[in-house]
Amino acid sequence: MLKECLENVRQVKPLVHNITNYVTVNDVANVLLACGGSPIMSDEPEDVEDITTICNALNINIGTLNQQSIEAMFRAGRKANELGHPVLLDPVGAGASKLRTDTANRLLEQIRFSVIRGNISEIKTIANGNGTTKGVDADVADQVTEETLPTAVSFAKKLAERIHVVVAITGAIDIVADAEKAYVIRNGRPEMGCITGTGCQLSGLAAAYVAANPQHFTEAVATAVTLMGVAGEIGWERMQEGEGNSSYRNRIIDAIFCMDGETLEKRARIEAY
Amino acid sequence: MLKECLENVRQVKPLVHNITNYVTVNDVANVLLACGGSPIMSDEPEDVEDITTICNALNINIGTLNQQSIEAMFRAGRKANELGHPVLLDPVGAGASKLRTDTANRLLEQIRFSVIRGNISEIKTIANGNGTTKGVDADVADQVTEETLPTAVSFAKKLAERIHVVVAITGAIDIVADAEKAYVIRNGRPEMGCITGTGCQLSGLAAAYVAANPQHFTEAVATAVTLMGVAGEIGWERMQEGEGNSSYRNRIIDAIFCMDGETLEKRARIEAY
Amino acid sequence: MLKECLENVRQVKPLVHNITNYVTVNDVANVLLACGGSPIMSDEPEDVEDITTICNALNINIGTLNQQSIEAMFRAGRKANELGHPVLLDPVGAGASKLRTDTANRLLEQIRFSVIRGNISEIKTIANGNGTTKGVDADVADQVTEETLPTAVSFAKKLAERIHVVVAITGAIDIVADAEKAYVIRNGRPEMGCITGTGCQLSGLAAAYVAANPQHFTEAVATAVTLMGVAGEIGWERMQEGEGNSSYRNRIIDAIFCMDGETLEKRARIEAY
Repeated sequence: MLKECLENVRQVKPLVHNITNYVTVNDVANVLLACGGSPIMSDEPEDVEDITTICNALNINIGTLNQQSIEAMFRAGRKANELGHPVLLDPVGAGASKLRTDTANRLLEQIRFSVIRGNISEIKTIANGNGTTKGVDADVADQVTEETLPTAVSFAKKLAERIHVVVAITGAIDIVADAEKAYVIRNGRPEMGCITGTGCQLSGLAAAYVAANPQHFTEAVATAVTLMGVAGEIGWERMQEGEGNSSYRNRIIDAIFCMDGETLEKRARIEAY
Repeated sequence: MLKECLENVRQVKPLVHNITNYVTVNDVANVLLACGGSPIMSDEPEDVEDITTICNALNINIGTLNQQSIEAMFRAGRKANELGHPVLLDPVGAGASKLRTDTANRLLEQIRFSVIRGNISEIKTIANGNGTTKGVDADVADQVTEETLPTAVSFAKKLAERIHVVVAITGAIDIVADAEKAYVIRNGRPEMGCITGTGCQLSGLAAAYVAANPQHFTEAVATAVTLMGVAGEIGWERMQEGEGNSSYRNRIIDAIFCMDGETLEKRARIEAY
Repeated sequence: MLKECLENVRQVKPLVHNITNYVTVNDVANVLLACGGSPIMSDEPEDVEDITTICNALNINIGTLNQQSIEAMFRAGRKANELGHPVLLDPVGAGASKLRTDTANRLLEQIRFSVIRGNISEIKTIANGNGTTKGVDADVADQVTEETLPTAVSFAKKLAERIHVVVAITGAIDIVADAEKAYVIRNGRPEMGCITGTGCQLSGLAAAYVAANPQHFTEAVATAVTLMGVAGEIGWERMQEGEGNSSYRNRIIDAIFCMDGETLEKRARIEAY
């Protein structure tokens, strides 16, 4: 499954429309190119319908939302729905402000999403309508551990069933679930949290993966999550003395660029749950 | 010509006003510093006239245009025209949406540009008023090959004559043309297409080069195109095992930072055509 | 002092709200993570009050200001004042345009800042209400040298007294002053000027440092300035053949990530003045 999903992206070269934050947008673009996809960014309401029409998927990230980009998210989302394109939501900071929480909720009401990817605090906010998000990082009290894993998986599956999406909750342990099944992924490194935007990058990857694997959305997202984790491990192994988070960022994207299906399968720590 | 143009930039240190997209803006700023210029970014309509007044050139890139930045492009463009500053247009995604195509066309009607730089699909859109751009990449059907080169050069020269600009069409083979003459450049690497923003970076360089070489716009642009290609080659030669597009991006900008006129002339694959 | 301030940041992990320019925002985020803080960016007026409420400090940078973000600066600034959070102003390009100069002046009238950090031209503009800023770089005529240092320190202290802030003037020689005392810092490398955003990064660091060292704002800022300079030196020492400003950017952030209190104290060239 992992190898096939990865190779489909390299073959299909999906064009992904991103309405995303200006903090990590360059890394999102480069990671999409690294995985074999192609990025285009547009957040002007008058522009987004045309742009999303020529794309294969839409990635909506509310990280630095504003009135203009919110309007663009709705217009692009409706058009993508109309065309049957997969749409991903990354509810960055949902729970941290009323505008972010409300925008995420309104998007979920009006747009049909294929995938939602966030940290546990953001996804809980989505599920509950409120949260305790500490900025853009998960609240410590929420974090998924080996002890809370069964509860978290059950929560993810129920949410997936209720809102008809693939739910990806990422953190130290990652969960990807639909209404029927779940994958638990234990790849990655804690140091990835010292880089801005690894979550945003993963959302970009996931959008490309579902676009290129339309028959297997859940597996496609699980592969993207595994890919990001394995790349985080390979990138860390290649770190040299004196290097820190800035070089690590480059090394992770490099590892995605160099990844092949065999390496991914060999290093994957993924299980059906 | 190449050495002289390069050294003029390092001596003049042109200040370039960029109204550009938020995806690749950091790389544009760093590549301008790498070549010896200095960047300033401003896209607020109330700010751009003052800013462009203290600059030596204006670089307009429509990659993530919005209503505010479009207004800023017109205001800055008119002021730069009034002051006799060179103005460059990078019509990112012209042909991919009505707003982008229309904005590029309206800019060309109302602002006097010195240079237009884009991929073949974007430039064809400029010439024809419509296009088949696949997102921000050139359509495969359009690409300049050894077979289509004579036609493409002739097209570039005619367009240059008709709209009174230097036309730079970049891709596997690059063409820089004015009404009378053309240069064909065969430097660069295909892997440069795996980095977001090498085109945007080149537009920034070209703006600095025309600012510092006001008597020879066509040669200045041809030198900037050659510089980007040679830097792409040097950067690629310096890639180490396990590195990918993120490190390659750094290595190209590094190569521009380290470039001297002798190296550029020695490695240049440029011919008058 | 240096070691204690550095370790407080790593322990407190201050969350810094940044309203900053889109050119260098990614580096600001990564440098905040490198020093042990956590960044969040938001510049939508409807979002900023909630966001700043959950943060420990506010960093306002006018580098690519627009009407929307200006409104956000005032709203966030007022809320941060209400909550007693430290607020830093980075008046990028004050003196280069009327909008930037006026916005900086209006912010200073209406918001109570704890720290102002800029180059000498920007700070002179703040002090005088006008300036001769060359874009975003300091005017050569203004630069602080060993000869002009006593005058510059005296100017910084008087300004600090008049507007009740810690003043940080950074350049070849850095000055950090309050009404009573000043620190002069001689760390850093001239090549740091070839990277976009080292000033913006330093402002982010300074905001994190005052947040984590609330009893010693002047020392906290002086430590952040020393940290940036020492990181610039370590980064430069680690440069390899063929590397330029893009790799240097990564190496400086890496050096901040790896910095410990002992190294900082050993390499610091700081003196009470």
